[in-house]
Amino acid sequence: MDTQKGNDHGEVKEVGNRKVSMSEVGLRFLAFSLTLVAAVLVGVDKQTKIVAIPVVSTLPPLNVPVTAKYHYFSAFVYFVVVNAVACAYALISLVLTLASKKGGSKGGLALMITTLDLVMLALLSSASGATGGVGLIGIRGNSHVQWKKVCNVFEKFCHQMLAGLILSVLGSAIFLLLLVISARKLQKKHY
Amino acid sequence: MDTQKGNDHGEVKEVGNRKVSMSEVGLRFLAFSLTLVAAVLVGVDKQTKIVAIPVVSTLPPLNVPVTAKYHYFSAFVYFVVVNAVACAYALISLVLTLASKKGGSKGGLALMITTLDLVMLALLSSASGATGGVGLIGIRGNSHVQWKKVCNVFEKFCHQMLAGLILSVLGSAIFLLLLVISARKLQKKHY
Repeated sequence: MDTQKGNDHGEVKEVGNRKVSMSEVGLRFLAFSLTLVAAVLVGVDKQTKIVAIPVVSTLPPLNVPVTAKYHYFSAFVYFVVVNAVACAYALISLVLTLASKKGGSKGGLALMITTLDLVMLALLSSASGATGGVGLIGIRGNSHVQWKKVCNVFEKFCHQMLAGLILSVLGSAIFLLLLVISARKLQKKHY
Repeated sequence: MDTQKGNDHGEVKEVGNRKVSMSEVGLRFLAFSLTLVAAVLVGVDKQTKIVAIPVVSTLPPLNVPVTAKYHYFSAFVYFVVVNAVACAYALISLVLTLASKKGGSKGGLALMITTLDLVMLALLSSASGATGGVGLIGIRGNSHVQWKKVCNVFEKFCHQMLAGLILSVLGSAIFLLLLVISARKLQKKHY
């Protein structure tokens, strides 16, 4: 009877672990997708508009094409680079998670993945912060330093940037969730 | 002889745990100090300068006092709020760590502290990113959108902001280190 009980317990535990691993795989795939779409959305973000610029008051204004590109702003370049790195890492960690599931997980690998998850969380958060901070000035402008808002002209550009930003924030939330799940799993076994 | 060995082992382990706990207390105090000084440095950052503004070409320029304050920029306000929150949390978590050391650590509390450490890492990183992104435009300006640099005028203001930013980044690095140490401790026991 005791052995039977032990087996039952073992099976339940195994199913539980497999469930957690599958949710980890799913979350890593979600992080990969979110950061990939965020990087692409911002990386291809470009809008050209014909703007009327008055040159001399006696003549009609000149119609000049003006373009907004993501790489005009350091913050947006940083955003694309970080999201691309996080996207690549999410894919690599997904493969490593699946490989360690088959071959048995190792302490060193688990610690490396946790550390890199933490680095990705920090990098993605800083990139989202930078894009949010600069984007807010693009929307509102800043009268104190005479920085004029640009999102009233480049609406499509700003909307696409905002969509990328939301996806990136969701991506960092996934990394946070992965880290909480991992901590919960380890602490459950410890205490 | 075996009991002696066991005792020796137990003592070494206890000393090891105490060492980790003391380093955790030290790191939390460091995080508290860094985020406190960062919040204060940026929170009191203010500079007034007399700027010569030409009004009419036939008259000499007007000397106008111009002031730069941290709360003129949403990113800097966010920076002060986040660093103040992280500073308060570092102090609370320091007290909780010391209390749990005396009363024996509990799984629920440990998980709560790990989760909040993660949230602080994300918040501090985003605040540093926002301040860095906006600060870089202050230093370099952006010719594409006619945002002029301001750090050539408000040098002291920008240097103080940079000092606050460096301290905040160090603060988030401490939270990252705390999380790596905690993961290493748990995974060592697990594998």
